Amino acid sequence: MGLFLKGCDWVITQNHDREVLRNSSISIDDNGTIRDMGITQGSRSDEVIDCRGKVLIPGLINTHTHLSMTLFRGYADDLELQQWLEKKIWPLEKRLTGEMCYYGALLGAMEMTRTGTTCFVDMYFHMADVARATGEAGLRSILSYGMIDPPTQEGKERERMSSLKLLQHIRAMKSPRISFALGPHSPYTCSEETLLWCRKQADKENVLVNIHIAETRGEQAKFERDKKSREINYLDKIGFLSDRVLAAHSVWLTKSEVKLYGKLGVRVAHCPVSNMKLAGGSVAPLPEMWEEGVPVGLGTDGPASNNSLDMFDTMKFCALAHKSHRWDPTVASAQRVLDMATIDGARAIGKEKEIGSIEKGKQADLVLLDLKEPNMMPLHGKETVVSDLVYSASGYNVSTTIVDGKVLMKDRKYLRLDPAKIEEGVSASVRRLMF
Amino acid sequence: MGLFLKGCDWVITQNHDREVLRNSSISIDDNGTIRDMGITQGSRSDEVIDCRGKVLIPGLINTHTHLSMTLFRGYADDLELQQWLEKKIWPLEKRLTGEMCYYGALLGAMEMTRTGTTCFVDMYFHMADVARATGEAGLRSILSYGMIDPPTQEGKERERMSSLKLLQHIRAMKSPRISFALGPHSPYTCSEETLLWCRKQADKENVLVNIHIAETRGEQAKFERDKKSREINYLDKIGFLSDRVLAAHSVWLTKSEVKLYGKLGVRVAHCPVSNMKLAGGSVAPLPEMWEEGVPVGLGTDGPASNNSLDMFDTMKFCALAHKSHRWDPTVASAQRVLDMATIDGARAIGKEKEIGSIEKGKQADLVLLDLKEPNMMPLHGKETVVSDLVYSASGYNVSTTIVDGKVLMKDRKYLRLDPAKIEEGVSASVRRLMF
Repeated sequence: MGLFLKGCDWVITQNHDREVLRNSSISIDDNGTIRDMGITQGSRSDEVIDCRGKVLIPGLINTHTHLSMTLFRGYADDLELQQWLEKKIWPLEKRLTGEMCYYGALLGAMEMTRTGTTCFVDMYFHMADVARATGEAGLRSILSYGMIDPPTQEGKERERMSSLKLLQHIRAMKSPRISFALGPHSPYTCSEETLLWCRKQADKENVLVNIHIAETRGEQAKFERDKKSREINYLDKIGFLSDRVLAAHSVWLTKSEVKLYGKLGVRVAHCPVSNMKLAGGSVAPLPEMWEEGVPVGLGTDGPASNNSLDMFDTMKFCALAHKSHRWDPTVASAQRVLDMATIDGARAIGKEKEIGSIEKGKQADLVLLDLKEPNMMPLHGKETVVSDLVYSASGYNVSTTIVDGKVLMKDRKYLRLDPAKIEEGVSASVRRLMF
Repeated sequence: MGLFLKGCDWVITQNHDREVLRNSSISIDDNGTIRDMGITQGSRSDEVIDCRGKVLIPGLINTHTHLSMTLFRGYADDLELQQWLEKKIWPLEKRLTGEMCYYGALLGAMEMTRTGTTCFVDMYFHMADVARATGEAGLRSILSYGMIDPPTQEGKERERMSSLKLLQHIRAMKSPRISFALGPHSPYTCSEETLLWCRKQADKENVLVNIHIAETRGEQAKFERDKKSREINYLDKIGFLSDRVLAAHSVWLTKSEVKLYGKLGVRVAHCPVSNMKLAGGSVAPLPEMWEEGVPVGLGTDGPASNNSLDMFDTMKFCALAHKSHRWDPTVASAQRVLDMATIDGARAIGKEKEIGSIEKGKQADLVLLDLKEPNMMPLHGKETVVSDLVYSASGYNVSTTIVDGKVLMKDRKYLRLDPAKIEEGVSASVRRLMF
């Protein structure tokens, strides 16, 4: 059975010409691809969704998070980063089980479904459990096991085995929506050997390498002291950087390092909210990245350092952070930022042929927002819709979320997830974690 | 008939000790004051609201906005301030009628009710119509007519007459919720004579003076060029500054100017979102203001320069803007920022004896948020609730809004406002404005 989205007030296609359709319908094949657009009726067997009073947008893409950290949301805020990690987060992370990560990921999946995110890139532990949660939720994802090198050679090999096991696990799931990436945590927590192993495996398996780069001033300074080299120089010199690398953060880059990203095709997951909250200093050089053609997506980062997974919130923070940093209100326009959360995000994770825009033949990852909520009124025209999405919308204006043509939430009701079961599982996990 | 809020999971009192109550009930007198707290049952005639699964907080206080500018929401974003004002906003504002401002204010009131703001300070035109909308909506407000001196003496006197007419109009309404403030727009749009007239009237009528001060770098530079004095020096020299002044923005202050604010008792409405979006440069010296004991509230500013009226959004921006500006994650903690939106906001507008916290004898301006939404889970304890409110909540998590003991929205249904009528009135206003 296909799906017929009938009479959307507006459709923000995010196609090449950034076309915006008025009073338009979309039909979706039962295999989850967009069959037709701008039509008046679907096929007889289609399930019909009434889209009057709604705007349809491509599902948002969160290019960097640690989903199971929902468990730590609000647990330890307003602290110095190292204090937060060493005193609060790391001791708890040691006690995490697969079951806990499963429930944490389900809670995150519920929040993303609720707030219009249909695809995410994750790095954490117990990733087979995160994969199970993602599969049940019906979301699209790229999952990586976060490799942190212990001092021993045996430990390092265990990290690599964990990565390969996750790869095999995900391939065995045979889900068209769940894919694998390598996840060396960072240049300062992984050895040169591990980084190069990841690079080689990524080429062999044709997957991305998800890594944190140049997040804070402190990290950058320590790296230079320890290795007598800047992070980017070091990664370039050892031959790690390539168009397989999805570099989260990338705040502390020089102009020539941004040029190098552009030349090598390095991809970026920009996380403005987390950068501001953890106060690592400065603001990522976004206009420079655009100038060098770097594909930049948006990420919320983990829910312990944001603390929400609402990509609408992240869009507004992104636009305003760059305007205020540059003292220039024309920087990071609403359209440009919506691009980052949709088609540019798809480009940043190598999925631009599949998702990121509403076009015939693409997968139907789609989100409906309610235009009858007061913050979405009035609508002056095409530009206003995009402005409202970035500067005024909340993820809680989302009414319906669709991935691969499957309706995950309709009129704010979850069709796959069981909120009561998730709440119970999360509460039990937190009780076991904290006491 | 009184009101009995039964079994709130959490009550964030914001009283002197910032007490947080667990599984607690509140009873409210029919005159709108809080009768009792922490009790198990109300009086027999009370209307009962089931508050299980909810957190109760004081209604949020928006200390600076221009409500009717909802009509311009999203109409002209990503522009330089002067271009925005001169090319886009001012030509439209000339065409505004009282009817349009009425509907614009109703839309804003609906958004505030929806997102948990119960009191606001407004400055705009056609303020009798804004007062009518506010009265119908049941919100608490301080309303000021925005005085901008024309070149002629006759014009200046007309502005003063408009202010006095609004004062008389509001007093004649005899609403305990609607009060008046003088509203000289700024030191660069009002003459010395007008500013001093406002100061004198404020003393005489025992009201606040609502004014924009030191908002942007450009304004500050131009003022210094024109008057050979910084704004604050000038305002101090002419004897304008006092504890009657509510100074919106106040971004471009030196440390000694902040000290002067503290010494004179000047109040501040801090508007972080608008400051970032319009990119006027820098960040208001909030920690310095706190050190000097300046009462600082939060404001959204007008919905054309934010573009939302959601104070939860403004709280998160406030916390993160100051953390990132100072490269210090401990600055502007969640508790401190919640204070700004509640009890400190009340202090900033001289209403701390009436509202801003949940205490016996205070007016019942109260808001319930739904703890079953995914972004509000899990709850680790008292500190987490406050963290979640500031870093994770959206105004759309609000389920019930109460002002003066009257329920304005219950379970997301408006009890006073008619959304369909507001939408129709706003659409008609926008059509007449734009064509």
